[in-house]
Amino acid sequence: MSEPTSSFPVTDKTKITRLPKRGSYDKATIYSILDEALFCTLAYAVDQQAYQIPTGFCRIDDHIYIHGSVGSHYMRALATGNIPACVSATLLDGIVLARSAFHHSVNYRSVVFFGKVSKVTDKDLLYKALELFTNKMCPGRWDDVRLPTDNEWKETMLLSLSIDEASAKIRTGGPKDDAEDYALDIWAGVQPIRLTRMTPEKDELLKPGIALPPYLR
Amino acid sequence: MSEPTSSFPVTDKTKITRLPKRGSYDKATIYSILDEALFCTLAYAVDQQAYQIPTGFCRIDDHIYIHGSVGSHYMRALATGNIPACVSATLLDGIVLARSAFHHSVNYRSVVFFGKVSKVTDKDLLYKALELFTNKMCPGRWDDVRLPTDNEWKETMLLSLSIDEASAKIRTGGPKDDAEDYALDIWAGVQPIRLTRMTPEKDELLKPGIALPPYLR
Repeated sequence: MSEPTSSFPVTDKTKITRLPKRGSYDKATIYSILDEALFCTLAYAVDQQAYQIPTGFCRIDDHIYIHGSVGSHYMRALATGNIPACVSATLLDGIVLARSAFHHSVNYRSVVFFGKVSKVTDKDLLYKALELFTNKMCPGRWDDVRLPTDNEWKETMLLSLSIDEASAKIRTGGPKDDAEDYALDIWAGVQPIRLTRMTPEKDELLKPGIALPPYLR
Repeated sequence: MSEPTSSFPVTDKTKITRLPKRGSYDKATIYSILDEALFCTLAYAVDQQAYQIPTGFCRIDDHIYIHGSVGSHYMRALATGNIPACVSATLLDGIVLARSAFHHSVNYRSVVFFGKVSKVTDKDLLYKALELFTNKMCPGRWDDVRLPTDNEWKETMLLSLSIDEASAKIRTGGPKDDAEDYALDIWAGVQPIRLTRMTPEKDELLKPGIALPPYLR
């Protein structure tokens, strides 16, 4: 058996031409960003007009999965498989405060990928993706909830998006100022930004006597 | 003088058909989401293929402004004004933990808008937008830094995107479960999510004796 390829091919659509040092085509890097991001934006074009949908998602191997209602217009349009998709996910890590306004920047990790959309009809994959998605949004949650009924599964449409061409763009570290600006009496550094999960707030209608589960503490 | 219109028109492109109660066309609502979001994704189509760019931005009235290098390929392509744009910005507010897997959700505020792109040639607007953008990323920063030189201004391209058709989609509040599920012994509620600005970390090359400015404390 051959090793799986560890990088995506560099294509006309994914080649990073601006600040190429920030670019990466490494699968592990790209997958880690997708796995950390709690939502992505899915873009597609109809008659030269781009549309976008922000949506939750999860990843298995070289596909991401999004779900919605079988009644959703855009899910049904995408399910035809005739519309190429572009997906992006961005993690903001910090505000980079340089001595000059010009060299201000942000630290971030972003992915943009291009792929094909398919409607998932395999029941096992539907179940697996919804379990993975639920546990991505709240690790440990799936085993603690009332699982979907047959009717609820039937109301849920799952779409797969193949990660065919992908690149990441990443900036890390402190400000890079012009040499002469380092002598200025101006504070410089990075203000880190974090997406923080706060203390859960119980539902007003929570049945008395139910403690916050360990996975949410 | 007539009052400015307080809502965007509902159009074929922006009408919320899925869960319409979550939709809003109110300008104040849409602007407040855009003003809070630290980045947006800009989508456009070339030959039926959608592309996306995550980017920082600021808003003045019914336009947003993005900037980049005059050498950027996509900025130059968009500056022609011939490519219609779609922009989205999303704020994630919480993970909604229902008693059933099916009714899990997220609290969020998102905006999608459609508009035209123009290259800004007015110098006053260029300066104003960059000042506003810098202070959006770090309130109070502009008055504390080395301002751009003539050459730095010349290297900076500013694009305006008109907010022509826009809608917001918002979910707030706790889980909504099926009536019979409220009797289950399952914890339910919301885990709030916040984008948090952490304590700034000084640059390794910071000149000694410069204290963290008050606006960063």
